[in-house]
Amino acid sequence: MHDIDMNNEDILAQHRELAEKNEKLLERHGIRAFNVMGAIGSGKTALIEALARRVAGNGVKAGAVAGDVAGNDDQQRFQAAGLPAISLNTGSDCHLDAHLLGHSLEELPLEEIELLFVENVGNLVCPADFPLGTERDLVVISVTEGEDMVRKHPKIFARSDIVVINKVDLADAIGVDPEKPRRDYEGINPNGKVFFTVAPEGEGVEELAEELGLRG
Amino acid sequence: MHDIDMNNEDILAQHRELAEKNEKLLERHGIRAFNVMGAIGSGKTALIEALARRVAGNGVKAGAVAGDVAGNDDQQRFQAAGLPAISLNTGSDCHLDAHLLGHSLEELPLEEIELLFVENVGNLVCPADFPLGTERDLVVISVTEGEDMVRKHPKIFARSDIVVINKVDLADAIGVDPEKPRRDYEGINPNGKVFFTVAPEGEGVEELAEELGLRG
Repeated sequence: MHDIDMNNEDILAQHRELAEKNEKLLERHGIRAFNVMGAIGSGKTALIEALARRVAGNGVKAGAVAGDVAGNDDQQRFQAAGLPAISLNTGSDCHLDAHLLGHSLEELPLEEIELLFVENVGNLVCPADFPLGTERDLVVISVTEGEDMVRKHPKIFARSDIVVINKVDLADAIGVDPEKPRRDYEGINPNGKVFFTVAPEGEGVEELAEELGLRG
Repeated sequence: MHDIDMNNEDILAQHRELAEKNEKLLERHGIRAFNVMGAIGSGKTALIEALARRVAGNGVKAGAVAGDVAGNDDQQRFQAAGLPAISLNTGSDCHLDAHLLGHSLEELPLEEIELLFVENVGNLVCPADFPLGTERDLVVISVTEGEDMVRKHPKIFARSDIVVINKVDLADAIGVDPEKPRRDYEGINPNGKVFFTVAPEGEGVEELAEELGLRG
């Protein structure tokens, strides 16, 4: 736990190597994989469910890896939604890494799925440092987290080319302007794409799915 | 970053030693200190503001340390509320530690304050491992984080003797029952105390202040 010094070039290289291994394995099986990061309660699970529902309509099968320090609540949610899912408990670690994901890939029925959603451990700090071998990295934030979440975590946003601002239906009730985190993000990552969503209702999910190149 | 192996007994002992040093320094100045943990957007800052407002009415002066990986938004909020405040940026680290807090204590006007609120970095994973030398540890969670946040992070809740469930005014709108995390917490920590709050309105803050022994 907390035992990886990412300033150490050897270890960084090791993580990159394992990430490439995952990438190649996924490629061999024709699976596109997405690393879904975000704080606890931002709506990562609901967003993955919404994306999976959308592609399922076209017969595209998605799988999921649910990363958490403890418990298998999210795995159960994914399985209830009909997705093959693995629960990946990190113990005390605040992020997934390529090594852990590699073990999950051994357990998943890779021949059955075309998409893989990897739900990272819920926080905006640690996952920023660890490549997994996924095709794209998303960060999900919720308007309920306040207006300053991007400014407080520049690293993870600089790395992610898609930001999903979720629960925008609550913006007025909470008094948070979702345009503020959008502007902060565009300042950090001018080429990044921002989507406003209400995940359980599927609002905004179509546009996101298009950006991800998902048939649905 | 991520470079402390807390399984290493030597390092654990070192952290405990530094925490004791902080504790003694605070004691010498007659300052009671609280470690306020919780995810980003849970309402830690608003809760500290509400507690500080409450005690200020009785002439009790509080100070604050705002821990974040980047930015000084919270320090500015505390200063605007009239609290001497230090911004403690951890870079890539997902928690405060006793060493960092020790440096903040050197910068704060300790002779002017009677209470110190230490706002930890916003997540429910890393801060669990690090004693700071504070008198009590609180975890703030928001109903907007969902019903499963306690089950997903047993370690931090086992360590904390007070849990504040914040934003309970949004519980119905979000469809979250705050009794569920309360029950999960009581299962982990039968002696722990739970408070339901709406921090910006001061709802529930009186009861919490009493539990903390704060005059107000």
